Parts: sequence; C-alpha cells; structure tokens
Amino acid sequence: MTIPPPPAEDTELPPHTVDAFHRGDFWLVQPRNDGHRAGMDALMLAATVPTAFSGRLADFGAGAGAAGLAVASRCKAAGVLLVELTPEMARFANATLAHPGNAHLTRRASVLVADVGLSGKARAEAGLADASLDFVIMNPPFNPPHHRPTPDALKRQAHVMEDGLFESWIRSAAAMVKPRGGFAIIARPEQLVPILTAMDGRFGKAEIVPVHPREDAAAIRIIIRAVRASRAPLVLCPPLVLHEQNDSFSQRAQDISSGRSALFGD
Amino acid sequence: MTIPPPPAEDTELPPHTVDAFHRGDFWLVQPRNDGHRAGMDALMLAATVPTAFSGRLADFGAGAGAAGLAVASRCKAAGVLLVELTPEMARFANATLAHPGNAHLTRRASVLVADVGLSGKARAEAGLADASLDFVIMNPPFNPPHHRPTPDALKRQAHVMEDGLFESWIRSAAAMVKPRGGFAIIARPEQLVPILTAMDGRFGKAEIVPVHPREDAAAIRIIIRAVRASRAPLVLCPPLVLHEQNDSFSQRAQDISSGRSALFGD
Repeated sequence: MTIPPPPAEDTELPPHTVDAFHRGDFWLVQPRNDGHRAGMDALMLAATVPTAFSGRLADFGAGAGAAGLAVASRCKAAGVLLVELTPEMARFANATLAHPGNAHLTRRASVLVADVGLSGKARAEAGLADASLDFVIMNPPFNPPHHRPTPDALKRQAHVMEDGLFESWIRSAAAMVKPRGGFAIIARPEQLVPILTAMDGRFGKAEIVPVHPREDAAAIRIIIRAVRASRAPLVLCPPLVLHEQNDSFSQRAQDISSGRSALFGD
Repeated sequence: MTIPPPPAEDTELPPHTVDAFHRGDFWLVQPRNDGHRAGMDALMLAATVPTAFSGRLADFGAGAGAAGLAVASRCKAAGVLLVELTPEMARFANATLAHPGNAHLTRRASVLVADVGLSGKARAEAGLADASLDFVIMNPPFNPPHHRPTPDALKRQAHVMEDGLFESWIRSAAAMVKPRGGFAIIARPEQLVPILTAMDGRFGKAEIVPVHPREDAAAIRIIIRAVRASRAPLVLCPPLVLHEQNDSFSQRAQDISSGRSALFGD
C-alpha cells in the first residue's frame, strides 16, 4: 500500500498491526499474534451485501471489524454495528474505528460488546433489540471442538465452535432482522447441515456459493445469503474459485478482495 | 446409433421406444409418451458408483431401468436390483431386461415390484431385506406437490414428491445397506435440506456435486454420494458443468453420458 498507515489512537493497545484493506480505503487495527486475524473470509462475507444497501447491518462476532468495515467501505449508505463478545477484541474494533484512515466511515459504524448467543429479554437488554436490523452478517468461530486446541486463549475463543452456536446465533439474527431483511454467513462445508437446519423456517431464498481454492479442488468455504421470512427455494450458485491454476488470485477473487464488486453482482 | 435396436419381447407392451445408452452397450424399453422418460439424470446417478464396484446394488424407483442398467454396463461385476413401485413401469423394466441387446447384462440384473417407502416387517416381506445390499442409488420423484400437475397419472407418480418421501426412502436405504456400503441420490438443489436431514446419523462422508447447465448458471441438480455409518464430514466437490458456452456438451458430461467414466473418478 502506498499510503503509510497512521498509528492507532489507543497507545496502550497490546502488540498490533495496522493493515490496509480495499486498496487502502480502510484500515484494520488487529492483534499482531493473538486472536483471529482477519483476511479473505471477512472480505468474502462482506461482499454478500448489495452495493446499494442503505439500511442498518450488524456484524456478529465482528472481531477487529474487518467484515463490517468492508461493508461500510463499499456500501456508501450502510450503517454498521460491530457486535463482539470479548472486550479484548472489542478494544481492537474500537481502535479500528478511531483510526484516522477510517474517518470517512466511522460516523456510520459503532461497536457493541455483547453475546449474540443470548435470547429473549437478556438479548434485548444487551443492546440487541428485536427487528432493529436490515441485515446480519456472521463469520462464526469455526473449528469443531475436536480440532487440536491452540495454546492461545483468544484464538481458541474465535475458533472453537460450541455445539449449538449456529442455532443460537441464527436464532438471534432471525429475531433482530426485519421481515425481508438479509442474512449472510461464511462457514466450512461440513457445517452446511447445522446452518441450514438453523435457518429452516427463519430465512428462505438461500443462495449458496461454494468457495474452492482451485477449480479442481473441494470447497473450503461456503457462503450463504438468505432473506428473512422468505419461502423461496434454495439456490446453489456457481462457485467462487480463488486461484487460477498458476496460483495467482482469480480476477473475481481480486475484485471481491479489493471491494470493487459484490459477490452476487447486486 | 449404428446397431439397429431389436424389438422388445413383450409384444403387448403399450406404445414404447427402444433407446440406446452408453453408445449402444445397453437398451432401454420405455413408454413413448407416458411416465418419466430416462435421460441424463439416470446416467449421472449411475456414474456415482465406482467402476470396480463388485457388490449388490439396488436402484430405488428404477422406472424402466436406466440407472441400474447403466451401473451394470460400466461396473462389470455389479449385481443390480431394479426396485419399482408401479406394475406399469416394472413391465417396461422387465421388457428392458428381456431385450436381446441387454443379454450380456441381464444375468446380473432383476426387477422387484415393491414400495421402498415401507418400513420394518412390511419392507422385509416385500422382498427388501435389511443389510442385503452394498449400494443403493435413487432418483426419487421430484417435483414438489405445488408444481402444476400434469394430466398423465404415470408422469404424476414419477414427479410428485410426497412430503416425507426422502425420509422414508433414505430410511429404507439405511436399513438395507451394510455398514460401509454406499448410497447415492440425484435431486434438485431445493431438496438439499430434507435430503441431508434424512441422511443425518445414517450416512456420512457425503460428497456433494452440484450440476450446472453452464458455468455461470445456478445448479439444476445435486448429486450426493455417502457411506453407511461413516462419521466423516461432508465434502463439497467441484461442480459438474454440462454444457460449454457454445451449447455443446462438456467433455466430462459426454464421458459420464457414454459410461466412459465415473463421476468421482473411482
């Protein structure tokens, strides 16, 4: 990137990096070694939101804010709420919003420390009001518990998917999104069944995009977008292939990574 | 086809056609206008079976026998049971087996008129014994009930998917297939959730292949193969694209259609 990243305001912040996204249109302040570092997953998730989207969107499990800021960067009329459970990661999200390089976006963005797995009155009391949103995006923590645990507690929190977390997160998304509002998730292919089960009866018109590292390799991610209270059938879209056979990024992956284009072309 | 199709033995058979498949390796006797005429769906389903498969396979809802015969044609050591509910279609399946052009296959194939939706003792009494098979393939009747009904009763029977039919058919497949045996289904993308729900806890190691008419169009079919009693996670495979941009069949579709290659390359 040619624009030198200005320092973060929170000078007491633990060791961190300040990374440019969308070709320098926004900057992410994130832990240098700890926690879940943001990358292509967040950008692909953000790319599910139509460019003309002008409502209020929440990023569940926002981390340092990559996906939410990527939405704010491309969708010029979107309001974005970054919802993060851990105060440690929310501190990075706040540092991201305080970063001078994001000044053009931050009047449309805010951070909320809350557990999106709550339900009923407790959820509302945590600041997560019913029917208060037009779109929810989520990149839930996603290694199953039997994966090799890492020594780092923050990373574990981001990567270990508790049983039923999809159900509770998607239940909250359904409660908070208005009828005809949007929902999108990025996850691993093996999580297709618990995700579709949790969406059943809540979100319809699902559009699934498999993400393959190469044309001839199995999918490493699935991206699903759906509509609250729709009864339209599921659609399996053409896959997103990230790399050409020569290992370079595909044009479509570059366009999504840079914020030039939306995943569904809308 | 260069080999002229010999006539069917059942001279009282209703109006029918005799069509060559796998470049003339087998022939299908099927109703001229009535019922569900076999085509690419049956051939793609048959292509899920490994070429070296040498056990006993049942084709649930076999119709005139296209998918089962396609397995027998490519898998030289497979034994094939064609299970068909309607006596009308089973008559065509028997005519298919009686056809002289299939003489090299018919010692490994038989027809059973039975309802694969039965359970427990009734299923066993219908000739569908528990743990008697190494593989089940199915192409269930698949237009949802709200689709425009057709005047033709046979066609309706083949196309209208009753609620719960996936559950009962897949339950029967799980009962009849031995541990580590195979299962494969071809269906429509919107049926992904009821199918995966019915497979849950019965078949694992699912491999899903989306079938797209063209590279840039939504999938029109899904093909799923799985293993009885496996707990391995689901895999989303690269799609099968049927046509090139110039409308010609893709090489892979031609290879599957002709019986030259298996879908999963095994």
